[in-house]
Amino acid sequence: MKKYTELKDIKDLSQIVEEAIALKQAPFEFKHLGKNKTLVMLFFNASLRTRLSTEKAAKNLGLEVQILNVNDSWKLEFDDGTVMNADTSEHVKEAAQVISQYADVIAVRAFPSLVDKEKDAQEIVLNSFIKYASVPIVNMESATAHPLQALADVITLEELKTKKKPKVVISWAPHPKALPQAVANSFIEVMQMANVDFTITHPQGYELSDAIVKDTPVIYDQEKALKEADFVYVKNWSSYTDYGKVLSQDASWMMTQEKLGNAKFMHCLPVRRNVVVEDAVLVSENSIVIHQANNRTYAAQVVLKNILENIE
Amino acid sequence: MKKYTELKDIKDLSQIVEEAIALKQAPFEFKHLGKNKTLVMLFFNASLRTRLSTEKAAKNLGLEVQILNVNDSWKLEFDDGTVMNADTSEHVKEAAQVISQYADVIAVRAFPSLVDKEKDAQEIVLNSFIKYASVPIVNMESATAHPLQALADVITLEELKTKKKPKVVISWAPHPKALPQAVANSFIEVMQMANVDFTITHPQGYELSDAIVKDTPVIYDQEKALKEADFVYVKNWSSYTDYGKVLSQDASWMMTQEKLGNAKFMHCLPVRRNVVVEDAVLVSENSIVIHQANNRTYAAQVVLKNILENIE
Amino acid sequence: MKKYTELKDIKDLSQIVEEAIALKQAPFEFKHLGKNKTLVMLFFNASLRTRLSTEKAAKNLGLEVQILNVNDSWKLEFDDGTVMNADTSEHVKEAAQVISQYADVIAVRAFPSLVDKEKDAQEIVLNSFIKYASVPIVNMESATAHPLQALADVITLEELKTKKKPKVVISWAPHPKALPQAVANSFIEVMQMANVDFTITHPQGYELSDAIVKDTPVIYDQEKALKEADFVYVKNWSSYTDYGKVLSQDASWMMTQEKLGNAKFMHCLPVRRNVVVEDAVLVSENSIVIHQANNRTYAAQVVLKNILENIE
Repeated sequence: MKKYTELKDIKDLSQIVEEAIALKQAPFEFKHLGKNKTLVMLFFNASLRTRLSTEKAAKNLGLEVQILNVNDSWKLEFDDGTVMNADTSEHVKEAAQVISQYADVIAVRAFPSLVDKEKDAQEIVLNSFIKYASVPIVNMESATAHPLQALADVITLEELKTKKKPKVVISWAPHPKALPQAVANSFIEVMQMANVDFTITHPQGYELSDAIVKDTPVIYDQEKALKEADFVYVKNWSSYTDYGKVLSQDASWMMTQEKLGNAKFMHCLPVRRNVVVEDAVLVSENSIVIHQANNRTYAAQVVLKNILENIE
Repeated sequence: MKKYTELKDIKDLSQIVEEAIALKQAPFEFKHLGKNKTLVMLFFNASLRTRLSTEKAAKNLGLEVQILNVNDSWKLEFDDGTVMNADTSEHVKEAAQVISQYADVIAVRAFPSLVDKEKDAQEIVLNSFIKYASVPIVNMESATAHPLQALADVITLEELKTKKKPKVVISWAPHPKALPQAVANSFIEVMQMANVDFTITHPQGYELSDAIVKDTPVIYDQEKALKEADFVYVKNWSSYTDYGKVLSQDASWMMTQEKLGNAKFMHCLPVRRNVVVEDAVLVSENSIVIHQANNRTYAAQVVLKNILENIE
Repeated sequence: MKKYTELKDIKDLSQIVEEAIALKQAPFEFKHLGKNKTLVMLFFNASLRTRLSTEKAAKNLGLEVQILNVNDSWKLEFDDGTVMNADTSEHVKEAAQVISQYADVIAVRAFPSLVDKEKDAQEIVLNSFIKYASVPIVNMESATAHPLQALADVITLEELKTKKKPKVVISWAPHPKALPQAVANSFIEVMQMANVDFTITHPQGYELSDAIVKDTPVIYDQEKALKEADFVYVKNWSSYTDYGKVLSQDASWMMTQEKLGNAKFMHCLPVRRNVVVEDAVLVSENSIVIHQANNRTYAAQVVLKNILENIE
């Protein structure tokens, strides 16, 4: 693996999932791989799970980890040809080249503006690092994608499925704040790569990009969509068509135990209780969100392992 | 030791003090104990000594350390059954369970509000982590207690005492800001466990909780209380009865060389010079505050060592 | 080396440059030196390169690294005899002594006020740590000096020079913000120690301290100064005489490819593109700024190595 910035960087999904599950059994087996190598983690946005799980994954592989909250230092410039006489102190062209000399791998987290749809789609921060850095880049959630989360999700499905081709549904949920489409996008993409019967359900106006959804069935009737589901991934996103807007906080879309039935409940966390999902679901045996969060470590570790093996 | 959130978690004080003093002589002897294990340190409040000494203690034991300033990520919810549609993004129930999967031990620092006495007494942050985490918890100063500081204090006393049962006094000092009672509470508790002649002195209105003070003598006359003291622990706290209020900044309660006489001067630091204690004391041979701060490392290390030995 | 707070701490410049270049070839050869030792890095100001390169250098030597953004904890007091009843919570006298017990080496970054010239000249933060700490101090850029940068600069010159005694020019550049004189000061000092033909050029009003400049020629005519230069170090600084003022943003002082000719372009970074230097220079083969930034690691590493060898 030369980088992991999008799901397309995975050549063989089932093989990498199997490898991740093996790593979970023996997390320190490849500790020699990271010896005298450094992962620099750059955060343009806040993080809890991604920060802790990726750092842990790296250390499991023997990597040194250096963490920088970019906004603690100064604002980077991303545009070409700018006369930098305003609030940006350093161009990403220099920053990426410089950090590449201190790092063997660079991981980047940079959320969308949710204001400028075209600009967000260009993934300027992530793509600038891909372009100007001379070391492999890992996406720790970008404007439009969260491929480490999606990998953890599919590992979880593989571990917990009880039939060969389970029915998986992603169901939109209400949320008071405008959230990115990144998690939903990547989950949809990874489900299209996996051996599952997959459905999307959300209220009208919450259609995601056609380039993501492709021919996955979209059903506006949540009850109908959830029928006989084995796994239900619940997630809010703000409108993609009326970009970044919160069009609805319709509480009837909140996930409940009744709606869920015997299906397993998935969510990337953090989750707002009794807004996105009722308490009863989270305390029930059907909730696998903690299991899912644990797999963030092994998703990151299998990615870093494959990148390190490609460096050597 | 299954956790270290309160002094009661110590079964045999003199044995643990002895063990800490031994660790100070050979700090790297147990470096194998932490191998492939991780301490996650969560800060809800600022820290200098606790942060550096606990991190050092962990690394002395071979632990990996991951540090998270929780407020850099997002606000946690602690109440049960809340409809989380306001400013909290994640419930501690999820956060604690998730972090438990990345950590072998979790250390937490969370100060009191000093506004709501009942709520502070409930130790909601610390107790939530105790309740929902699946790994041992270490208290790096909570709303009402600072047991790592108290352990460092008693180690210091053991090292520097020149008689079998020294006289120890804790003496309130003025301070411009409202400070927690945590350090005083834990020092009083640990003195009640130790073989010392112990007295509390403070102005009227600064009475601490009866549940803490118990039958320890409280003398309002500072001069009288300090007579023939071997060790004087100086510390400000805000009023407990008129909760969180600064009732007095009476400079006559500041510790001076004259008042101190030949007694050793103790303080947990940070200390405001010429408000809590005059400069002359801190530069004198009677000040043992730097020695005391050094013992923070070995207090943390003996606690982590006992916890790690219990995990294995 | 007992400390590295100023260039004078280097006894033999060419020998240390040679040693740094050797370390670059075998960065992990001295990993035993830092075993069971800790570098505490204290930041009073933001950092990207210094933070990452110094941390990496330390880890290359096997040191544990603990990083503290001092402003995340509380404000330190630096004056003598203060009644600390205002916004400072801890005196540097205590802080430096305490941290010395957790650290084997302390590195400090503390910028000038650019308001009070005399106070900045006193280097109160750095000198307080030198005075009160009991372990070696490394300057990660202080009010008036940046000796780690200067060492990286001279390593770069040594590696890339094509004649025995190259012509080196430091050329002032415009900048919208008031910047310290530290980088210019230390570069001038190190050039005076090196075997180079050295010239300073800047607009009138931007004269640096006589104690720094000494008998180095200062030419106000940039074109004339740059003639036949082999290396041009471009750097803004605010006025030293009219202290901390931005007297000119004269764009004609910006470095261009035309002005530069065949000379190598140096800058400490971060650099504001098309203000300090035009884009064309940075993408040209004559720019050695990325190479220079890489040498920050080996400058820090050779310093830490010499300090560690002196401790043992």
